[in-house]
Amino acid sequence: MIIDLSMPVNENTIVFPGDAKPVFEQAGTLETVGFVDHIIHINNHLGTHIDAPDHMLEKGMLLSDYPIERFVAEAVCIDANGKAVLGLELLEGVEIPVGGAVLFYTGAGDTFQEQAYASEYPQFDLELAKALVAKGAKIVGVDMMSFDHDEPYPVHKALLDNDVLLIENLVNLQAVAGKQFKLYALPVRLELHAAPARVIAEINEKEAA
Amino acid sequence: MIIDLSMPVNENTIVFPGDAKPVFEQAGTLETVGFVDHIIHINNHLGTHIDAPDHMLEKGMLLSDYPIERFVAEAVCIDANGKAVLGLELLEGVEIPVGGAVLFYTGAGDTFQEQAYASEYPQFDLELAKALVAKGAKIVGVDMMSFDHDEPYPVHKALLDNDVLLIENLVNLQAVAGKQFKLYALPVRLELHAAPARVIAEINEKEAA
Repeated sequence: MIIDLSMPVNENTIVFPGDAKPVFEQAGTLETVGFVDHIIHINNHLGTHIDAPDHMLEKGMLLSDYPIERFVAEAVCIDANGKAVLGLELLEGVEIPVGGAVLFYTGAGDTFQEQAYASEYPQFDLELAKALVAKGAKIVGVDMMSFDHDEPYPVHKALLDNDVLLIENLVNLQAVAGKQFKLYALPVRLELHAAPARVIAEINEKEAA
Repeated sequence: MIIDLSMPVNENTIVFPGDAKPVFEQAGTLETVGFVDHIIHINNHLGTHIDAPDHMLEKGMLLSDYPIERFVAEAVCIDANGKAVLGLELLEGVEIPVGGAVLFYTGAGDTFQEQAYASEYPQFDLELAKALVAKGAKIVGVDMMSFDHDEPYPVHKALLDNDVLLIENLVNLQAVAGKQFKLYALPVRLELHAAPARVIAEINEKEAA
């Protein structure tokens, strides 16, 4: 079974505070050139996207520097629905796949179409970030606008400085909460520090049963 | 084994004749806001991308109208390296997975960084397109700038009108030519008729041996 964990994106998609709103500018039309196309003007952190170290660290790796294998991983999604703080205790009893991905379902992403989504989301505890690094996670993802609320973005830096890739603005995580699965988190191959991605979970029905 | 079939994209990426060139406009810097981000201004057909019917057909389906399962498919890549015309004979002896994907390695994509890539590519025969429809292919992909050279884009229309999704600007197809594999062709979830995609082949080593 395949589950789509990616946010649909249009001109009304809620953006990170201060970011430019997306614009989908129609270029060609059936009448003029025989096809429809658009120039999209979007922040590279719009919607579901992946951050690499160069987003926040001097001379960090670009997302396009990573081999394709880094975007396919054994994964687990931890149910943190309704919690105001995501803390260390969430890892109790959870087997983290070494070199794999850990997602957190917070419920914030359930209202991704409301303006409050931009700023009202749980606090991701720095100790949780450090523990994920220690346990060997290489991708961490959330259904929130960001891992941090303010500068100096300590959670981002704790993860990025340890070669962990970050996925923000996931949706539909309730469908995989508490489950193990294979994650395909495939970013567009932009030669930049971050890129929009299509992220899916592939659940082995037999294992899930 | 995972093989990346996606074109790396930067401001120098060759575009379809007449399209605007991509611009990666830096917005935030480490000094000003504590992070680097960019506004990307790109045609939604830049680099490796997928076309849905609304690209050329009145009131056709948008790419975002398709369920996620449509982007994961059993696939085969046919070796058409060096051919000036991709014709019906290429399907001789090839088992097309029903509901699956058929890619064509033409070699055009081997020089995707040269300006000639924009216009010098083989002719995709309309009879080949019709045969692919008849055999039940639901995704067809090429390492070329387009399936057509000129209006009225008959190959696009023959495929799109039969609910076949098109992938253009694939690269690295020599690595999968003649092979069967699982294709993950995941487009960014833009609510439009087409979107940039990360496309990978997952080869089962046992089957491939």
